[in-house]
Amino acid sequence: MEAEIISVGTEITLGQITNTNAQFLADQLRQLNIENYWQTIVDDNPERIIAAIHNADKRADLIFICGGLGPTDDDRTMDSTAKALNVKLKLDQEYWKKLKIDFAHRHISPEIDNKRQAFYLDGGAKLENPVGLALGSYIKKDGHQYVVLPGPPREFKAMVLDSLLPLISSSNNEIVSRTMHFVGYPESLLMKKILPFIDDHRVIATSYVQPDEVQVRLTIHNVENNHANTILDAVEKRIKEQVGEYYFGTGRNIKLVNQVVALLKKKDLHITAAESLTGGLFQSTICSVPGASNVFDGGFITYSAKMKEKLIGVPSDVINRYGVVSAQTARFMAECSKEKIGADIGVGFTGVAGPDPLEGHPVGDVWIGISINGLPTRTVNLHLSSQFGRQEIRVQSIQLALLNIYKMLK
Amino acid sequence: MEAEIISVGTEITLGQITNTNAQFLADQLRQLNIENYWQTIVDDNPERIIAAIHNADKRADLIFICGGLGPTDDDRTMDSTAKALNVKLKLDQEYWKKLKIDFAHRHISPEIDNKRQAFYLDGGAKLENPVGLALGSYIKKDGHQYVVLPGPPREFKAMVLDSLLPLISSSNNEIVSRTMHFVGYPESLLMKKILPFIDDHRVIATSYVQPDEVQVRLTIHNVENNHANTILDAVEKRIKEQVGEYYFGTGRNIKLVNQVVALLKKKDLHITAAESLTGGLFQSTICSVPGASNVFDGGFITYSAKMKEKLIGVPSDVINRYGVVSAQTARFMAECSKEKIGADIGVGFTGVAGPDPLEGHPVGDVWIGISINGLPTRTVNLHLSSQFGRQEIRVQSIQLALLNIYKMLK
Repeated sequence: MEAEIISVGTEITLGQITNTNAQFLADQLRQLNIENYWQTIVDDNPERIIAAIHNADKRADLIFICGGLGPTDDDRTMDSTAKALNVKLKLDQEYWKKLKIDFAHRHISPEIDNKRQAFYLDGGAKLENPVGLALGSYIKKDGHQYVVLPGPPREFKAMVLDSLLPLISSSNNEIVSRTMHFVGYPESLLMKKILPFIDDHRVIATSYVQPDEVQVRLTIHNVENNHANTILDAVEKRIKEQVGEYYFGTGRNIKLVNQVVALLKKKDLHITAAESLTGGLFQSTICSVPGASNVFDGGFITYSAKMKEKLIGVPSDVINRYGVVSAQTARFMAECSKEKIGADIGVGFTGVAGPDPLEGHPVGDVWIGISINGLPTRTVNLHLSSQFGRQEIRVQSIQLALLNIYKMLK
Repeated sequence: MEAEIISVGTEITLGQITNTNAQFLADQLRQLNIENYWQTIVDDNPERIIAAIHNADKRADLIFICGGLGPTDDDRTMDSTAKALNVKLKLDQEYWKKLKIDFAHRHISPEIDNKRQAFYLDGGAKLENPVGLALGSYIKKDGHQYVVLPGPPREFKAMVLDSLLPLISSSNNEIVSRTMHFVGYPESLLMKKILPFIDDHRVIATSYVQPDEVQVRLTIHNVENNHANTILDAVEKRIKEQVGEYYFGTGRNIKLVNQVVALLKKKDLHITAAESLTGGLFQSTICSVPGASNVFDGGFITYSAKMKEKLIGVPSDVINRYGVVSAQTARFMAECSKEKIGADIGVGFTGVAGPDPLEGHPVGDVWIGISINGLPTRTVNLHLSSQFGRQEIRVQSIQLALLNIYKMLK
């Protein structure tokens, strides 16, 4: 079965709202293993709504027409759909009576236009609206199935979940999927390393770049649940063998910084930092996690060379001898900040965020120092793309620091 | 001129991501007075990409094909577009050379697949990607204009704003527009205050919410340039009279933090901060501006009460008596950090980012202290919506601090 989602609304084609309904529905369809290759969006224009339905007829069996069921003049979806399918509209008398009582209760009289929210496609079924006024509709015609749904996301979701899904969830074959998270390696190279090791043709691997990580989603269709998970376990294991050094977790809502803060909390460790090129972004990233105060008390931004000496006591001859952008300076920043705060872990960031080179180092050259009580201090050198902007160089530096801390503590 | 937006991506048709690019672009088109009635979304399938372009040919003059320019096998947009238009792909030799040098700098060798990010439509123009690797392309053919754009929202936005709009709006010279920037007042209330004062019916005002500001764009169509600017000057003046306290500038690429850093540089003033709830985000925002080192040397993150005493010397009896979330603590954080660093301006941030209340203060309660040499210290109390998440509360706090500093120095 192939589906197409048609979203109707001038507010979408004018860019006033984001079309979250289509995403929600597409995600539901995926979970039902219903294929969906096309989505169409048109404004509230009857001719274009009809044209969109006729286009969809050619390429899909299950067609959703979403939005435009309100009481105002520009809500034309139900009657346009009826026209496109050459069926009549039918008034749900009982529902219209209920609407009128409801309005009386609110001390207002329903506009005559509210009546059109009580119509559905003749020959089809009405779909109840658990949280709004407009009815939806479902009809089978000429080998196609059509579903008309309201636009407001709250009503849309409720109708899909409560009224529609029970109707169309025919397939028992679930999709099983999981998302692996990586940091510190470009998407294309990562996939090149991973793909040869996905030797089960039923497993589909897709990658997705976020500003702060690369996600790889593994998906299996039409395989019984337990068996699917066994297959995915094996694939995941092989992937970790290949690119484990960049891997930090599997799951839907996993963030590296949350993993690190949770690990610090579990081990009862406190972290601090002295930041130069990142200018406070590392510590503010730590503080973005609720409960960060369990693992973080405070720290330093030592942007100028002078402040590296003045605030945390990096020896001036280290900076003079090795330069600001050096392993030695990063090491001292980590160790001195840790000592000053009395933390268990200190991190130092120094490097070139751009746009100009510094001390002969090109944009994207970064040194990170990580000092953890009881372990030798680690220094990490990054050569980030000069194509990256300032912000991306800083975000990548922070993610690489977090990854190293995570691996050192694990 | 009528436009159609085609978005390409299996991650969209599978419902994994929301299609924010289409909304952003639709909004830009609206402001340029370019009509847009259709949007189409297809998965990363060459045949369907080609079919979508052919469908769009029938109903639009200006066709955008967005997403699918990555280096991996499933990124097929540029070559599918070339096929649909029956043109060849052209390698940008110079750009490919630059990519290779960049990769060499990162100590990795580019995969041959990265090369395809350096191709564009032969006979058309390339569009530079200010923040990513893939080139875009623009071509006129058979009475249509086609634009190929990358998928990652950051790259998409940057290419649209920096490379595309100048191209499109230059061929559409009857539009005069300007963007006013505001901070610290909700969009809906701002527009309520503004709209009654736009008494010239030729002026269209549209608002656009960014995470860190509200933009109001004033547009006039089909009025001669000089005259249009005279009208806009008058409207802008009236708007400033109404909501000037939230206004910080007019222009295309204006950011409040850039305005503040430029002003500090002009006045030769250095700034520092002691940050609690913002955890370093204020200072890292300052450091996001190239050349920040002219006005910023370093500062403190004093997340715990203890660190407020230990690092900058806020008297413990101030904290004990008034609490951490108080005008007094914010004032001392500002003054003490300024003194410790030897800066001209010190800023203190303390408050409740959530998710839990603190010392009886609800989520969203924030105190900001601003100490500027030669001026009395100012304290500002914010009551931000608890509907906001942690990050938004922090961003709003920073923007309000910047706005106050800007107004105090102006």
